[in-house]
Amino acid sequence: MTETTAPTWLPQHDPLATADVHEWLADWRRRAGMRVDVVPLAGLRGWRQDADTGVLAHRSGRFFRVEGLSVEMPGAAVPRWDQPVLHQPEVGILGLLARRDGDTLRVLVQAKAEPGNQDGHQLAPTVQATRSNWTGVHGGRPVPFLHHFRDPDPRRVIVDVRQSEHGSWFLRKRNRNMVVLTDEDIVPPPGFRWLSLAQVHRLLRHDDLVNMDIRTVLSCLPAELTARTAAPARDAFTAALRRSCRPGTGSRHRTGELLHWITDVRSRTEVGADRTALRGRAAWHLGEVSLRHDSGLFFEVIGVDVDAEGREVASWSQPMLRPCGQGVVAFLATRLDGVLHVLAHARVEAGFVDVVELAPTVQCTPATLDYLPAAARPPFLDQVLDAPPERVRFRAVLSEEGGRLYRARSSYLVVETDDVDLESDQYRWVTLHQLSELLRHSNYVNVSARSLIACLRGLLDAG
Amino acid sequence: MTETTAPTWLPQHDPLATADVHEWLADWRRRAGMRVDVVPLAGLRGWRQDADTGVLAHRSGRFFRVEGLSVEMPGAAVPRWDQPVLHQPEVGILGLLARRDGDTLRVLVQAKAEPGNQDGHQLAPTVQATRSNWTGVHGGRPVPFLHHFRDPDPRRVIVDVRQSEHGSWFLRKRNRNMVVLTDEDIVPPPGFRWLSLAQVHRLLRHDDLVNMDIRTVLSCLPAELTARTAAPARDAFTAALRRSCRPGTGSRHRTGELLHWITDVRSRTEVGADRTALRGRAAWHLGEVSLRHDSGLFFEVIGVDVDAEGREVASWSQPMLRPCGQGVVAFLATRLDGVLHVLAHARVEAGFVDVVELAPTVQCTPATLDYLPAAARPPFLDQVLDAPPERVRFRAVLSEEGGRLYRARSSYLVVETDDVDLESDQYRWVTLHQLSELLRHSNYVNVSARSLIACLRGLLDAG
Repeated sequence: MTETTAPTWLPQHDPLATADVHEWLADWRRRAGMRVDVVPLAGLRGWRQDADTGVLAHRSGRFFRVEGLSVEMPGAAVPRWDQPVLHQPEVGILGLLARRDGDTLRVLVQAKAEPGNQDGHQLAPTVQATRSNWTGVHGGRPVPFLHHFRDPDPRRVIVDVRQSEHGSWFLRKRNRNMVVLTDEDIVPPPGFRWLSLAQVHRLLRHDDLVNMDIRTVLSCLPAELTARTAAPARDAFTAALRRSCRPGTGSRHRTGELLHWITDVRSRTEVGADRTALRGRAAWHLGEVSLRHDSGLFFEVIGVDVDAEGREVASWSQPMLRPCGQGVVAFLATRLDGVLHVLAHARVEAGFVDVVELAPTVQCTPATLDYLPAAARPPFLDQVLDAPPERVRFRAVLSEEGGRLYRARSSYLVVETDDVDLESDQYRWVTLHQLSELLRHSNYVNVSARSLIACLRGLLDAG
Repeated sequence: MTETTAPTWLPQHDPLATADVHEWLADWRRRAGMRVDVVPLAGLRGWRQDADTGVLAHRSGRFFRVEGLSVEMPGAAVPRWDQPVLHQPEVGILGLLARRDGDTLRVLVQAKAEPGNQDGHQLAPTVQATRSNWTGVHGGRPVPFLHHFRDPDPRRVIVDVRQSEHGSWFLRKRNRNMVVLTDEDIVPPPGFRWLSLAQVHRLLRHDDLVNMDIRTVLSCLPAELTARTAAPARDAFTAALRRSCRPGTGSRHRTGELLHWITDVRSRTEVGADRTALRGRAAWHLGEVSLRHDSGLFFEVIGVDVDAEGREVASWSQPMLRPCGQGVVAFLATRLDGVLHVLAHARVEAGFVDVVELAPTVQCTPATLDYLPAAARPPFLDQVLDAPPERVRFRAVLSEEGGRLYRARSSYLVVETDDVDLESDQYRWVTLHQLSELLRHSNYVNVSARSLIACLRGLLDAG
């Protein structure tokens, strides 16, 4: 274990100033670089491709598999298609260790490199481990701090909920999002630092800095932990945002009505997603080098060789999913009776466990839209892309999960609008405290919406 | 439509006295009997058996299918097995129309016969309809009162949540449990009557009278609707039960701790359930007459011809699942600080959508236990079966769903114990208001526990 427990005479932690985080990450990039080479998919070290089906699996049978998925969505803009999908049934842990310091909540973050990251190291949660990590399938070193999450005192667990990942790329993948309080005086070992929650929230405004895994964990924090500053809000927008985060504040719809709406959409929507062979899928070409769509769009599955220092395992090979084009992920937001509401979309993704989850108002990859039928164009995309700069309340390019996704990045936006009359069968105005309430449970809020929730909370604090 | 709207001059409804319910049901049995003949599975009218796989499907492609299921549960008493399963992906509606009459909540019940029922008609919710019912696949008459549930005013929806059914027999089956308020003066058409909620609750004490579909809907009613009488409780047990139903009352564990526990069990438990062919399943014999286990235990799949009056369709054939032996479904209950708690079991069933749901303390078919390894014997079964009569707070034999299950019946019990030290990895003491909170969402409380929750609420009222 690389964990160090502080001697009791150590009176204080040593929090890192926000301005120093960039330098700290840059330093780690220099000291523990990760070399990633794109290599042919065929013959990937440690992986086996089934001769008949083309399905790619690790020789251990663990980690994940690249399979085919046959999707049917009667009535949708594209009512049926085939695609490759990452199948990873095991539930990993995304764990954030937290500590109260007076009124300040501090969290233990990690500078972590992932093979898919654009620039190597990003801010990550304390623990980011698949089951295969900690059961030693890959024969690596133990995961630091894992025991805080494997067998915690239940009274110190603030968050423990399995949440979905990108349902267009993963089949029913869930990770366990955990936040556990400690009162141990932990001196961070190399690569770990204590930051305040407010610091991490503010760092979300920087491109490619706060990784997806910590964003989703942050979004699951109870609303009352994130909006309890006593200072006056610096403007009307921030005041409306703060009210939106506060449990019990008025909302356009009662939560019971939202649950009725979600049940209704789920009951009316038919979606079939069956696992199939990878070979012989219409429009997909499985070659020696990669697996790609005939159009060159959507995504491709590539192979990588990874050489890493400071990881549980120093070198390995794996398939990765490389999206073709940058995503756009945006909430339209408006103030209703002084409370900020965001326009949630009840979105179907083939890999979801339960038909639909609440998603951002817009979530798409614009590059693919020319290929798809016109009806597949998201209704509010132009409104988001053409918004006047003063209505754009948040904008940053953030990386998606870098362990399976290769250089997957999206532009995250929150755009304010005065047009409140935007609801339809699949769209509802909701408050952030309502989303927080739903986030206590699985299958309600998708990973893109969770990232935006964390970003919105980052606007609560000035500076 | 057989629905009748009352003229506005009609000042009162005509509620049925509890004592008259038996006579009313008996009358319907005489007037609209249902004839059910067990017939060979092969050549069932309207059904097609796939020559290769043996899978049984309706010629329309709708309703449900009898398929094979290959189950893996590493570490369980039986770590892998094959079985037949009913696969019904479409979500039906179980809808109860309700009306406030001063302080009394009245619900519109139906005398409904199902082919699997022991004695024909039982008390059923206002609407009990599969999607195939209302989309007219079977070419039948419209379902009375369905429009109240198809497009309700969201502000009048008290309950709308999809809940699971028996996960050992059905693959990921969910029904939409709905309670909708109306203020229309509805004069019940033949076969329908208004009863007070308290009446239906009390009728649960009678064997085979209140059907499973209305039991599950009742269990989803918010706790505050069920325990708001001002009268003093008649004894300490009832007082503890009433406190248990009241939101905010103290509980052994915070709800956050329960969610952590459920997430933990779900994350640690590996379960695989893959749909397979029906033919060639180990230990199962698919014959002309039926599909049965070599031991004669568990269940068999049989065919029935049904002749019914007063149904949307007057005659049809279908496969049914006939359990071999009566079930035992029991909660152990205890008082902690004057609040009744029940011992919930985090139970795995192969057909669940999300690994485990909270189940009664004991849920099994004793007849099968001799065949299974000793470790499969439920831990608290003897404690339930050998309980002294004065500790048995509830006991009735109730029917399971009669549309797919043939004469499936279970003994439902609530047994009080002073032994509070019964918790382990898979068992927790929970209050009824905590179960109510979870019942706002899918996948938390299984159908057997839901029945017992309704039964327990029936003990709140004297008489």
